[in-house]
Amino acid sequence: MNIWFLGTGAGRPSKHRNVTAIALQLPEPSCGWWLFDAGEATQHQLMRTPLKLSKLEAVFVTHLHGDHIYGLPGLLSSRSFDGGISPVQLFGPPGLKRYMETVFEISGTQLDYELQIHEITDDEGFITDNGQVKVEAGQLDHRVPCFGYRITEHDQPGKLLVDKLKELGVEAGPLYGKLKQGESIALPNGTVVRTADVTGPIQAGRVVTVLGDTKPCGNAVKLAKDADLLVHEATFAAGLEEKAHEFGHCTTIDAAETAAKANAKRLVMTHFSGRYGNEDLIRLEEEAAERFTAVTAATDFMMIEIKREQR
Amino acid sequence: MNIWFLGTGAGRPSKHRNVTAIALQLPEPSCGWWLFDAGEATQHQLMRTPLKLSKLEAVFVTHLHGDHIYGLPGLLSSRSFDGGISPVQLFGPPGLKRYMETVFEISGTQLDYELQIHEITDDEGFITDNGQVKVEAGQLDHRVPCFGYRITEHDQPGKLLVDKLKELGVEAGPLYGKLKQGESIALPNGTVVRTADVTGPIQAGRVVTVLGDTKPCGNAVKLAKDADLLVHEATFAAGLEEKAHEFGHCTTIDAAETAAKANAKRLVMTHFSGRYGNEDLIRLEEEAAERFTAVTAATDFMMIEIKREQR
Repeated sequence: MNIWFLGTGAGRPSKHRNVTAIALQLPEPSCGWWLFDAGEATQHQLMRTPLKLSKLEAVFVTHLHGDHIYGLPGLLSSRSFDGGISPVQLFGPPGLKRYMETVFEISGTQLDYELQIHEITDDEGFITDNGQVKVEAGQLDHRVPCFGYRITEHDQPGKLLVDKLKELGVEAGPLYGKLKQGESIALPNGTVVRTADVTGPIQAGRVVTVLGDTKPCGNAVKLAKDADLLVHEATFAAGLEEKAHEFGHCTTIDAAETAAKANAKRLVMTHFSGRYGNEDLIRLEEEAAERFTAVTAATDFMMIEIKREQR
Repeated sequence: MNIWFLGTGAGRPSKHRNVTAIALQLPEPSCGWWLFDAGEATQHQLMRTPLKLSKLEAVFVTHLHGDHIYGLPGLLSSRSFDGGISPVQLFGPPGLKRYMETVFEISGTQLDYELQIHEITDDEGFITDNGQVKVEAGQLDHRVPCFGYRITEHDQPGKLLVDKLKELGVEAGPLYGKLKQGESIALPNGTVVRTADVTGPIQAGRVVTVLGDTKPCGNAVKLAKDADLLVHEATFAAGLEEKAHEFGHCTTIDAAETAAKANAKRLVMTHFSGRYGNEDLIRLEEEAAERFTAVTAATDFMMIEIKREQR
């Protein structure tokens, strides 16, 4: 599972940061990808990555501010040009359906695939499961309805311990299949082998939390609980908490404190105000690191692999 | 008067061409600029030019297809961030007002300036005059209502011929002012000097015609009549006329023939299909040059100065 930062700026694009978009590449067998927000020119940013629009499966919109949605119509139109024919699910706050339908109607846009739009209610919680990962949504605290998304990969059964099976005299073949399916088998000498005896530990599903714009709130902590990776906005530097909260945003310190309270394993900060250039990133990371050490300030086109841990 | 090509591709952006946008820098004293169409990421393209959003005065939309309008909401929002407070006039086909109002309402966008939206009717003709240039619109022949714009600079009076005035013994001062305002003056020796006697030829206003997507049609020729510069789409190469016309577009040959019929002085072709790369431009120009020699294939960020001629 890889996460790509396609746009890491707030409000308006700058030469170095585009407005918000984050892509999550799903593991095998899907090999598709999901998009979280699509600020203007997200499709342009995608041209500089290996992500193909035709493989896009779902889009999750955190909120309807322009810097998070103005890239949606163009990106979804271009998916047809790119040969995308499988359905795309689009999740987001109420108003999203009218936005897409009005824009497509006026611009005469027709897609070659089905766009399934789901408007999320405040307390909906679980919203989808594609058999590989499930997604829960929770309302944050911004100036307009805004959601955070918690993506939880299903746990994978432990792998068969081939060396142990060899010791027991079980050869690769149909017996392996039975054990994988949880059936016990009896050996010629009468010994009964149970799946649990010959499999390694369960491979825990990874958890990624992507939050929209927010000031500090309980739901942010709840959505990020024990997450392997938390993506959190940090629009402003430390010391600007008052201004940040007034506009429904966080500082680096706020983001770090949420990550610490949630016991997240790693924090990536994004959505930086245009006042911060690349030369400020070290300082922003250092501010956050005083409260939460495993922190990274995102830059456009940064990709992070989220590794699977064993429980 | 300079014209900037900010996006010269059709349908969807590619790595080398953005979707349509063209800027016209007005001469002194305005020094503002006008925009013709705003495909997605036009504001991103502008960051690579000296054009400032705060100096944008008007936007002319040719038609409502996505590759011509999806950049409007973001660009007009960012103008507020850039300190733009003077009103902006927005012209285009019916539907434009609902598009802008719906998108801004749903995204909670508030501008720091007045956006004056004028929807153009089919046979409106003259649409605006800012005291420097006037604009006429004419309906073209595309799959949806689509306009071309003819921008005509006002003629400027001829310059005072200083050498001739010196010969006559007229010194620089109030008498120059009178002559400039068209008043005749009497010299001490009784000679009457009329403005026409001591001014050079009228400086003819420049004419620029920017057409939207179209197949060949009479209005295209009419709008481009004797223009100093004609911007014409050439979505397809020569030989693809049937396909081009079916989709309401032109080939290089069509564009050249319109320029020739209109007696335009110069043709710039734009809106090339994504199938054509930069390596194809010479061929596309050569095709057109068989019918109209003063032709250029536009590339993103090309700037052309439109010089004033004397009549």
